[in-house]
Amino acid sequence: MAKYKCIISYDGANFAGFQIQPKQRTIQGEIEAALTKMEKRPIRIYSSGRTDTGVHAKGQTFHFESSLTIANEQWKRALNTLLPGDIYVHSVEEVAQTFHARFDAVEKEYRYFVYTSRERDIFKRNYAYHFPHSLNLTAILEGCHHLEGEHDFTTFSSAKATAKGSRVRTLTKVTCQQNEDNFEFIVRGNGFLYHMVRIIVGVLLDIGTGKLLPDNIPKLLAAKDRRLAGDTAPPEGLYLWEVTYE
Amino acid sequence: MAKYKCIISYDGANFAGFQIQPKQRTIQGEIEAALTKMEKRPIRIYSSGRTDTGVHAKGQTFHFESSLTIANEQWKRALNTLLPGDIYVHSVEEVAQTFHARFDAVEKEYRYFVYTSRERDIFKRNYAYHFPHSLNLTAILEGCHHLEGEHDFTTFSSAKATAKGSRVRTLTKVTCQQNEDNFEFIVRGNGFLYHMVRIIVGVLLDIGTGKLLPDNIPKLLAAKDRRLAGDTAPPEGLYLWEVTYE
Repeated sequence: MAKYKCIISYDGANFAGFQIQPKQRTIQGEIEAALTKMEKRPIRIYSSGRTDTGVHAKGQTFHFESSLTIANEQWKRALNTLLPGDIYVHSVEEVAQTFHARFDAVEKEYRYFVYTSRERDIFKRNYAYHFPHSLNLTAILEGCHHLEGEHDFTTFSSAKATAKGSRVRTLTKVTCQQNEDNFEFIVRGNGFLYHMVRIIVGVLLDIGTGKLLPDNIPKLLAAKDRRLAGDTAPPEGLYLWEVTYE
Repeated sequence: MAKYKCIISYDGANFAGFQIQPKQRTIQGEIEAALTKMEKRPIRIYSSGRTDTGVHAKGQTFHFESSLTIANEQWKRALNTLLPGDIYVHSVEEVAQTFHARFDAVEKEYRYFVYTSRERDIFKRNYAYHFPHSLNLTAILEGCHHLEGEHDFTTFSSAKATAKGSRVRTLTKVTCQQNEDNFEFIVRGNGFLYHMVRIIVGVLLDIGTGKLLPDNIPKLLAAKDRRLAGDTAPPEGLYLWEVTYE
């Protein structure tokens, strides 16, 4: 049995999220079906983490085990032939037996796309969040700066999250770049709580419109109270951009 | 009865083309259903021309007549509320009784998007043509130049087209702009034959790869033979960009 690491993109628009579920079209479901067809026995994949309905990926990573003797490039070609048009395999690489796509991930990067034009752009409807308000980039960048570093992100995680243990995470990069009406938020860190990026973007948008001051962020973090952080930004703007391994 | 001119965008990916057809999801079908709901009697719309399955529009134009007394901005809002997410109304404007979206159009502009990266980009799968070959922009622009002006475009129209009458059309602008791996073809003219833009792009891509020389275009035009012009570029890259009225 060999172990393979696989990097994929997917367009989340027509999936009920990453995780396999009965009677739903999911990314995991499609990939396991393709691998099972190749292997002629049930195959399970293990990802770096799931993504919600409507969320996209440019660099999701998973691993699986196989008894087939296939070269990396051939794996890629075979999977891309079997998979639907909204999933694409960038690479398949044989890895050590000890590799685990979730436990070995040292950092993840998410990006979140917002456009602020007054008019809706139907071509972006599944790929960016339409937020037709003018945004102050300087204020947003100040807010980003307050989020970088090690913090307890309880305020910035879904109240529905039942994860036990510490909610302390380290964000190594939080920034935003503007190109006319388009804003691209970049968030890198060693771990993320449920809905954390979307809640962070929600707060940064509140800062951008002036509803909140950048200096409020330390207070929000200290309060450890989800109710203070406003709306969760919708899924269509979010991309799991990259998963980094040692 | 007042007459209205309406400018719309649509994402053609999930439509069986513009023209209404029984049991198919079409752009005309969706718009007429919305107007019929508002007007409470069957309403017909008249567009500048149809587009095929998978073809998009950024500035399709149609007209319709209504007995309702509604301001332009209200029309826009009402229609955008009733229409599905892949059609968007940019403007509704009352026009003279003599206006006709098809017969009064003096010029149309189409754009065609191609990307040449080796890897497929799933986020573009419905919105640009993946053509993973290196292209010579200088040669393409020379080819464009040969197509500008008044010509008989029989070679560049579908052999299936049964339109009678002259196949002479005037192209006022044929050009291409490159941004890294992305090529944007722009074709403006006073009229277009069936598949004409997609056949032109097919020929310009053959010129870009060196399969054809720019200087071959006058010969192709003179031959008036569709079989000489190679493949029709696929629909997903094509956008009806603008319709110009006097």
